[in-house]
Amino acid sequence: MSTAEGGGLIAVLDPDWNVGPGILNGGYLVAVVARAALEASPHADPVAVSASFVQATPPGTATLTVSPGPAGGTLAHSSVVLSGAAGPSVVAQVTTATLTAAAPEYSTAPPPSTTPVDQCLSPVDDGTLPRVGLQSRVESRLDPETWGWITGRPAEEPVIRAWVRLADGRPPDPLSLVFFADVLPPTCWAIGRFGWAPTVQLQVLVRAMPAPGWCLVEARAEEVAGGWFDSDCRIWDSTGRLVAQSRQLARTPR
Amino acid sequence: MSTAEGGGLIAVLDPDWNVGPGILNGGYLVAVVARAALEASPHADPVAVSASFVQATPPGTATLTVSPGPAGGTLAHSSVVLSGAAGPSVVAQVTTATLTAAAPEYSTAPPPSTTPVDQCLSPVDDGTLPRVGLQSRVESRLDPETWGWITGRPAEEPVIRAWVRLADGRPPDPLSLVFFADVLPPTCWAIGRFGWAPTVQLQVLVRAMPAPGWCLVEARAEEVAGGWFDSDCRIWDSTGRLVAQSRQLARTPR
Repeated sequence: MSTAEGGGLIAVLDPDWNVGPGILNGGYLVAVVARAALEASPHADPVAVSASFVQATPPGTATLTVSPGPAGGTLAHSSVVLSGAAGPSVVAQVTTATLTAAAPEYSTAPPPSTTPVDQCLSPVDDGTLPRVGLQSRVESRLDPETWGWITGRPAEEPVIRAWVRLADGRPPDPLSLVFFADVLPPTCWAIGRFGWAPTVQLQVLVRAMPAPGWCLVEARAEEVAGGWFDSDCRIWDSTGRLVAQSRQLARTPR
Repeated sequence: MSTAEGGGLIAVLDPDWNVGPGILNGGYLVAVVARAALEASPHADPVAVSASFVQATPPGTATLTVSPGPAGGTLAHSSVVLSGAAGPSVVAQVTTATLTAAAPEYSTAPPPSTTPVDQCLSPVDDGTLPRVGLQSRVESRLDPETWGWITGRPAEEPVIRAWVRLADGRPPDPLSLVFFADVLPPTCWAIGRFGWAPTVQLQVLVRAMPAPGWCLVEARAEEVAGGWFDSDCRIWDSTGRLVAQSRQLARTPR
């Protein structure tokens, strides 16, 4: 990310973060937006990001316009617009703060029972998923309990779980969690509703600094109705701590 | 809501929607923001609203600046800024569409087991809660299973449930659901963490047109940590249908 002449930020959106030809992953875009907000913030970490996806964003040069709001010792607010060649494509509210390693006073979200990472499926090795650029950027291990749909056995429940980590070996950080919040396939695919399922609006809350190692991501739809579905996502780090929560509204495939 | 000279919208924020002296309820403000977005939209209903609360909003005259984004046959996006006397206070992304009564293809969120409305507590009658203006605008019946904290018996779990309806007798509509998504006290109060707990960012998804009658609202914190807590809220209508989901990040009382 660099500063443009006359202010503003410029990012070159790498085509390798794609989920199809010329279609960049939404979580990647929101992480870019959150990073832009951090450049203008006195705080180090994104704690809440809400983004509307107003049109598709092509790879290539994009501008990021950050409008800072009030900033205090605890948190700062900003609005960020990411614009590609065709105009604004992601419009977001970002709250930044400084995350700590403080133990939770209360936590009700233990990690779900999950197949150990070394017994999970690797989508790259077994060729069951179409190759997309994103698989060169993130390593994933798919819990076979929730991936029957890739071999023709959709589940009763729209739930998908996988272990994920960045392919370049970097440990997870808060921006990685923002990306991981939209890294799984659409939850409706798990019940056999395949097809293009664009995210309309996504909120990600980052709750703690993640420990090094694999993160467990679980996404679940609560309702598929009237052309819409939700995806409610939780992320735990390698110590089993809840580190992020997100919810998105998306369009059901036709 | 009226149109200002030179464009823009003006709303008079009624002091009776308060949750304390001069402090307006966040859900009320987000419903006002959503209504402003509808004025500029070809669609009738808010389906996703994400708002940052950047500073407190006093009662009185406020301006609403709506920046419409792309609008199509299915949905429309806009950004809305609500500004009071001290400047911008709520900044939001709003997605509008037209809700249908279509039955869900899939639903995994049946209403929780709840005390019937006629056996619940009325906060106005029994005087257990401090009177705030909001209670003149919304009628509530508190499930005694989750309100032990108002009589000195905090619960183990930060969960609060209540039946709610508008006090003026109007049946619920999508804007009411946006308001109801922030109508309960902070979830951390249920475990005895009392005090001022300002919402930082709130996302509300409206999933279906609500039937007439009482709505059931359940809010639950998944984690209280490092000065932050979340409130994950679901709303069911009188037929037991899931009609809205929301999540907010808020500051834990000191």
